[in-house]
Amino acid sequence: MRRFVITATAAALATATVAIAGGHGGNPAVKARNAHMGLYSFNLGMLGDMAKGTTEYDAAAASTAASQLAALAAFDQSAYWEEGTIQGEVDGSRAKAEIWSDAAGWAAKQELMKTASASLAEVAGNGLEALQGGVAGVGEACGACHKAYRGPRN
Amino acid sequence: MRRFVITATAAALATATVAIAGGHGGNPAVKARNAHMGLYSFNLGMLGDMAKGTTEYDAAAASTAASQLAALAAFDQSAYWEEGTIQGEVDGSRAKAEIWSDAAGWAAKQELMKTASASLAEVAGNGLEALQGGVAGVGEACGACHKAYRGPRN
Repeated sequence: MRRFVITATAAALATATVAIAGGHGGNPAVKARNAHMGLYSFNLGMLGDMAKGTTEYDAAAASTAASQLAALAAFDQSAYWEEGTIQGEVDGSRAKAEIWSDAAGWAAKQELMKTASASLAEVAGNGLEALQGGVAGVGEACGACHKAYRGPRN
Repeated sequence: MRRFVITATAAALATATVAIAGGHGGNPAVKARNAHMGLYSFNLGMLGDMAKGTTEYDAAAASTAASQLAALAAFDQSAYWEEGTIQGEVDGSRAKAEIWSDAAGWAAKQELMKTASASLAEVAGNGLEALQGGVAGVGEACGACHKAYRGPRN
């Protein structure tokens, strides 16, 4: 029975994971954090378009996107930031060595993103001005981390 | 004041979104869904490694990864599946036209993934055999959708 379960699990996993879009090649940790950033970008992009007036403010859509952003920020990201996956060493990485040499500073920036996106999720449905304030806070958190811990475009 | 807020928001957003990893070029919806699949893959990969015995079972880590998988599955993905973003038409897409022509079948598959990953999140911390059963269920949900709605590797 045990063997059957393991075999069935392995088969199901093979189906599931072998051919996920873009799933082949590259460092898994780097790909995971780039995917995470991509979902930040997508949700924040929707919110930013509303904040800037490019698209019309929609309280429900803003709340959903902001909640997703906050959920992502609260994900356990420890497995993403594998030591040695530094820009220049690993394909697709823009991580500076300071992420590991200044672990406390890095953790503080991650905390800032978590707090700012939780605040945004709280107010995103409360009108355009509330959204704008929340989005600005998240933008600052993104920028603070990128400035300190991200290298130049590859 | 209003203008100031908008300007500050725009500046913060520029900092935040301009240079997100891999953030330039390509269809935003396709990139977002590929990023989403990438995070599925990362979390499910950790769980699959435990289920197969490649890594040691860790109840807390399994619970965390399974909760993240379930949270992702519950995200509003409507903006990802933009009509016309079909394999062959848009770079990076493996979406079949059936996603749009068979919207009900497609929605059922998304629901299956939501249910299976919620079930996995409930049991992932309850020991290796519970994890294996839950992972197999998610693997089947992934496979069912890929088989029906995803084209061959690009």
